[in-house]
Amino acid sequence: MKESKIKVAVYGYGNIGRGVEAALSKCPDMELVAIFTRRDPTSIKPRGNNIPVFRACDVLSFKDRIDVIILCGGSATDLPVQTPELALDFCVVDSFDTHAKIPEHFSNVDIAAKKGRKTAIISSGWDPGLFSLIRVYAEATVPNGETYTFWGRGVSQGHSDAIRRIEGVKDARQYTVPVQQSLDAVRSGSNPSLSVRDKHIRECYVVAEEGADLERIEREIKEMPNYFADYNTVVNFISEEELRRDHSKLPHGGSVIRSGSTGFEDENNHVVEFSLKLDSNPEFTSGMLVASARAVYRMQEEEIYGCKTLFDVPPSYFHPMTPEQLRSKLL
Amino acid sequence: MKESKIKVAVYGYGNIGRGVEAALSKCPDMELVAIFTRRDPTSIKPRGNNIPVFRACDVLSFKDRIDVIILCGGSATDLPVQTPELALDFCVVDSFDTHAKIPEHFSNVDIAAKKGRKTAIISSGWDPGLFSLIRVYAEATVPNGETYTFWGRGVSQGHSDAIRRIEGVKDARQYTVPVQQSLDAVRSGSNPSLSVRDKHIRECYVVAEEGADLERIEREIKEMPNYFADYNTVVNFISEEELRRDHSKLPHGGSVIRSGSTGFEDENNHVVEFSLKLDSNPEFTSGMLVASARAVYRMQEEEIYGCKTLFDVPPSYFHPMTPEQLRSKLL
Repeated sequence: MKESKIKVAVYGYGNIGRGVEAALSKCPDMELVAIFTRRDPTSIKPRGNNIPVFRACDVLSFKDRIDVIILCGGSATDLPVQTPELALDFCVVDSFDTHAKIPEHFSNVDIAAKKGRKTAIISSGWDPGLFSLIRVYAEATVPNGETYTFWGRGVSQGHSDAIRRIEGVKDARQYTVPVQQSLDAVRSGSNPSLSVRDKHIRECYVVAEEGADLERIEREIKEMPNYFADYNTVVNFISEEELRRDHSKLPHGGSVIRSGSTGFEDENNHVVEFSLKLDSNPEFTSGMLVASARAVYRMQEEEIYGCKTLFDVPPSYFHPMTPEQLRSKLL
Repeated sequence: MKESKIKVAVYGYGNIGRGVEAALSKCPDMELVAIFTRRDPTSIKPRGNNIPVFRACDVLSFKDRIDVIILCGGSATDLPVQTPELALDFCVVDSFDTHAKIPEHFSNVDIAAKKGRKTAIISSGWDPGLFSLIRVYAEATVPNGETYTFWGRGVSQGHSDAIRRIEGVKDARQYTVPVQQSLDAVRSGSNPSLSVRDKHIRECYVVAEEGADLERIEREIKEMPNYFADYNTVVNFISEEELRRDHSKLPHGGSVIRSGSTGFEDENNHVVEFSLKLDSNPEFTSGMLVASARAVYRMQEEEIYGCKTLFDVPPSYFHPMTPEQLRSKLL
């Protein structure tokens, strides 16, 4: 075991960056040594005193003082560039969550990390992340069955942003809500066929500009392709005051459910369910990112280089206890 | 990837052995090549035709024809002897479930497997097994919290056996039943302190010998130390016919729930729950044993030797897909 703490840096100080700072304060084996930002460093006020803030462009001069960098930017434009770039010189962790682009991102990060003899974990968090792990274990255990994923009730930042881009909208919050009857049907083990519309409702809280055409806004939301058109969507207009009072948090959650059968005649049914109820989506995601930073550090110590996902890492690497302690206490 | 199938043998043909046979029939990358038994081989009738049955004492002569042996004996007396013995000459998997003795068993199997350059996974199944994995991941993600495990509703074979040993009892079935109010309290995130009695009820169905003293039997069950004395126990006397009709299956299940908080002031709560509803405890356990045999085979191919638990094995090793397929389909 290492006697000094694992030195972690945060790259990007938004919701996830703040969550990582909070999560590290709960891990006695790790410490936050630096925050990097593309904004003016003096404009950043970390919660912890004495956490130095630096310009993102100066990160390379910290090569020997950081064990792992946790990248806290967005998946659309930040991480596809930043993670491969930093993986050349640092061990890194990110929460890249554009499912369709994971293979490409993995390959870019893998090339960089191997070149630099560094270790990276991408797409850590809860989906992709813990939910993905459950899909693998449950499918491996019960190969004959179906896996369902439900998200919510929780705030989707992407859908909230999409509403905000509509003319006449001042602010908005969108909740993804699983359809209870569909959840119940899946939990019963009946393996129903469910369309996109069957699984989730989209519940929108919108603050309109004064005098805006509410009917047009509602129509534009409901007809928006990809985001809303395939769902039953409910639009509620509320005041700015109500939005602040009732919708300022970022709760989320969901369930992965696998239902399948075993036996020579498929006579026995099994339902495996993993569910999350989270008050703060970014803080829970940050918890997994920090555990992944611990895993990355340990792999680098063992000279295991390149890009990894949670599928490639032994579970014990994420936990502060030793394998012996884990076997005697948690097995 | 291997072109031929992974050759698996079953050692012991009880409920788990039959479950493994059924589970292997669902895995196109694996095949059951032999069953070993301490009984007379001609007395064993495998479900699959053409599965040869051999004497357990002849197993060593099959050294070059088997990739992995799945041990299907009991944890009390079979596995502590058999797993280390076979690990000298074969890759092995077992479901050793005496939690307190896992460190000793691990060490015995590890010494043998390393000596023989073989790979072993012990204590695979759902508890120990999938439940243990959830404890590790959830605790690593939310370090500040409590983890609770509830079992049932399901048949406990150990408790059923204990009742059968009482004088005047012809047959018995014991269900472990979680206390709903306690489950609800834990799910609410209130982190209650729960005694053994608060968490589970023991529900017994007993067939008595004709003329037996029912009051004495009920008293002896309820006062039995370790098994029943610390629980609220309900005893129902039923007929042999009712036992056969209503209690012939071996359902089980349960939940691991971690509830904890994040944030600088622990202001955000999170509830992580993993739950199982199983029609057949031995068949589900067998599913995990078979997936573990796949993992053991892959580790041996990579010259990773010694004893492992699920904590030491990357999740992808259990699943038939390649890491690339897993990343694009399940992450």
